[in-house]
Amino acid sequence: MAMTIMEMIKNNKIIELSEYLQEKNSVDIAKNMMYLEPCDLILVFRILQKDTAAEVFSYLKQESQQYIVESISDDEVKEVIEKLFLDDTVDFIEELPANVVKKVIRNTSPQKREFINQFLKYKECSAGSIMTIEFVDLKEEMTVKEAIEHTRKTGVNKETIDTCFVIDKYRRLKGILPIKSLILSKEDELIENIMDNSSVYAKTSEDQERIAYLFKEYDLVSMAVVDNEERLVGIITIDDVVDIIEQENTEDFQKMAAMEPTDEPYLKTSVFTLAKHRVVWLLVLMISAMVTGSIIQQFEDVLQSVVILASFIPMLMDTGGNAGSQSSTLIIRGLALGDIKIKDYLKVMTKEFRVSLIVATVLSVVNFLRLYLLQKVDIMVCLTVCGSLFFTVIIAKIVGGILPIIAKKLKCDPAIMASPLITTIVDAFALMVYFTLAKLFLGI
Amino acid sequence: MAMTIMEMIKNNKIIELSEYLQEKNSVDIAKNMMYLEPCDLILVFRILQKDTAAEVFSYLKQESQQYIVESISDDEVKEVIEKLFLDDTVDFIEELPANVVKKVIRNTSPQKREFINQFLKYKECSAGSIMTIEFVDLKEEMTVKEAIEHTRKTGVNKETIDTCFVIDKYRRLKGILPIKSLILSKEDELIENIMDNSSVYAKTSEDQERIAYLFKEYDLVSMAVVDNEERLVGIITIDDVVDIIEQENTEDFQKMAAMEPTDEPYLKTSVFTLAKHRVVWLLVLMISAMVTGSIIQQFEDVLQSVVILASFIPMLMDTGGNAGSQSSTLIIRGLALGDIKIKDYLKVMTKEFRVSLIVATVLSVVNFLRLYLLQKVDIMVCLTVCGSLFFTVIIAKIVGGILPIIAKKLKCDPAIMASPLITTIVDAFALMVYFTLAKLFLGI
Repeated sequence: MAMTIMEMIKNNKIIELSEYLQEKNSVDIAKNMMYLEPCDLILVFRILQKDTAAEVFSYLKQESQQYIVESISDDEVKEVIEKLFLDDTVDFIEELPANVVKKVIRNTSPQKREFINQFLKYKECSAGSIMTIEFVDLKEEMTVKEAIEHTRKTGVNKETIDTCFVIDKYRRLKGILPIKSLILSKEDELIENIMDNSSVYAKTSEDQERIAYLFKEYDLVSMAVVDNEERLVGIITIDDVVDIIEQENTEDFQKMAAMEPTDEPYLKTSVFTLAKHRVVWLLVLMISAMVTGSIIQQFEDVLQSVVILASFIPMLMDTGGNAGSQSSTLIIRGLALGDIKIKDYLKVMTKEFRVSLIVATVLSVVNFLRLYLLQKVDIMVCLTVCGSLFFTVIIAKIVGGILPIIAKKLKCDPAIMASPLITTIVDAFALMVYFTLAKLFLGI
Repeated sequence: MAMTIMEMIKNNKIIELSEYLQEKNSVDIAKNMMYLEPCDLILVFRILQKDTAAEVFSYLKQESQQYIVESISDDEVKEVIEKLFLDDTVDFIEELPANVVKKVIRNTSPQKREFINQFLKYKECSAGSIMTIEFVDLKEEMTVKEAIEHTRKTGVNKETIDTCFVIDKYRRLKGILPIKSLILSKEDELIENIMDNSSVYAKTSEDQERIAYLFKEYDLVSMAVVDNEERLVGIITIDDVVDIIEQENTEDFQKMAAMEPTDEPYLKTSVFTLAKHRVVWLLVLMISAMVTGSIIQQFEDVLQSVVILASFIPMLMDTGGNAGSQSSTLIIRGLALGDIKIKDYLKVMTKEFRVSLIVATVLSVVNFLRLYLLQKVDIMVCLTVCGSLFFTVIIAKIVGGILPIIAKKLKCDPAIMASPLITTIVDAFALMVYFTLAKLFLGI
């Protein structure tokens, strides 16, 4: 598509291009505008119909948005900004350098400017920061006919009319009304009789993770946001919530791999930032791995007399670590999705203990057969290795199961607290059991 | 809420209970019905209004659904099934034992029965298996007024009317029409002039991961599904896609922690199943860790003469593993979200190399200072350890960055292929560098 656009520009087929773009989806147009030369970008943006232009603009990368705002006239900026939804405007302004912000603000109507200022004040990741104000509001005492009229009149610039929001004269939220109920009800029915007053809503200060949970739990497509006086101030729509869900998941993946979380795409992040996000946890984990080293040093005499014991240390530690992270991952994910609650800690421990008995037995037996029959290792060394393996897996699974719950109980993030600690605890335990059993079985 | 319901039943306040339930959200009613005794469950289900009953039913746990179907009369089953959306009916039937399925099928209209049979044939995780057939279909030649009439008449039992789907006389998909355009357009406007024919749609065989990607990319709330002849056969709605997104994420978390993926909630999964999902990968990893062991065995003479070297093995291996999994996690996630493509492999390798230079330098220097100044370790041993650490981190990051891309290129799942391999490769490499440097620096 980018090729076609360039081709048309090169051949000066501007009218054809305009027609071609009218057929295309705004998301695709935005995606392909990325590949254009700066002056072609401006040309294509100007060719777009006014309504489409604002929509395409909201899907552009930040650099392109900024370049366009810097290049077009004040009147054009005004037009785009007035057509942009407030949540998109705020997202866009937040990323701009100060001089460009000035140009945008200068071309924004006083009312919208006030809203923008108010929105910029909401805490990051709060309901207030992700909501928008373009919604259809109805009154309880309207009839269906009046409500449809009102929707027709005010709906054009709303982000969604799939759900309407019913308020009283103090703008307090009374209920919601899916457009389906409105269309399917009799014309003289009163809104208050057909609205749904059992819908869930959020305060502006609510965390976005909680919002995402409510959307999933109640299968919502939009949600009302109220201020401290229960007045309706905005709505959150599912498309933004889907982004939040993916963002929260990305953060959990990063935390569980011992990194500081960021929602910046990898290829856009600078080498220095990437290094900074990784080095802190690597340092912490490196230093905590020294604990394991000092345990080995304490048992230097054991290693000195049976040096083959050293060769099983990696296997023991790796298996313990893997067994533990399997458990912690399941529990961390269960906690994040709400499948597992803090009060389930006994159930989790019992379950992990029973699972670990099966897993530990299988692993130890396989290992024993391999070492004794295939590698002809001394039977007492085999018993030492497999005995340690057995206990290590059990401890790893129980620690892996319970640590995320303890973290959650202490109001820490299970993802970031559990993973690093587990390795250290399991490693230390594995080595202590190993050397103790070695002393016992091998009589060192 | 469950307490209130039980209280009301105990005190025989059935009418009050009925009024109370009318005020409540279906999702909440379903959640709280879980805590009721079986006979109370049936009682509450019968008290619910017909429309609400089917909705509540679709949110109940499978055991409760089954118990209700077994307990109520054929006529009652008929009523619930006819009101249930097809996708919910299919999900529910798939989980039932054969005798209960018979009762359901017996009470299903021939037409719906045919749809159910057809739906059960779609491959799991395909667009066909997640779509539903309750949508509003319009014709291109209708006027807005006719279309609104048609929607009014046929919309009652549709899952959504937020988007209508426009078809020709062969039922081929021509475009979509958001209800917003319908409401806001003039009454005599033709549908073909206002419909959107640039919308994205899917084939029945399309994988759900791709569907989720399209919903995210194009900010959709619903999507048309067509058969091989481009005929509209169903729609997919955003609430099901949100579930799919979470399910795909859960699977990636599990695969990256070396488990066979499952979307069964942890507390509902049997101990045996949990053990089975975990033990295979633990066995594979245990056996591959033996490679590391055999490297140590080859260098037994080195360890024998400088036994303190053994105590740094855990730190080296852990740090290498952590450094590698940081990189692989970022790349796996980037590939999953579409931020990183296979063709970016050179960019990724260069970036990881540059990041690893910074990280490796910081880690080695800190480690050197700690060992030499605080623990007074022999300087040649310090150089051996820190030199190995430096190279291990660099290799770990490059391998961690490139392996997921290679897996993707080979059409393997990056999440399941990359993590286990990385540990083994990095461990083996770390030990070889370590012992080689030891021989060099310590002259063994």
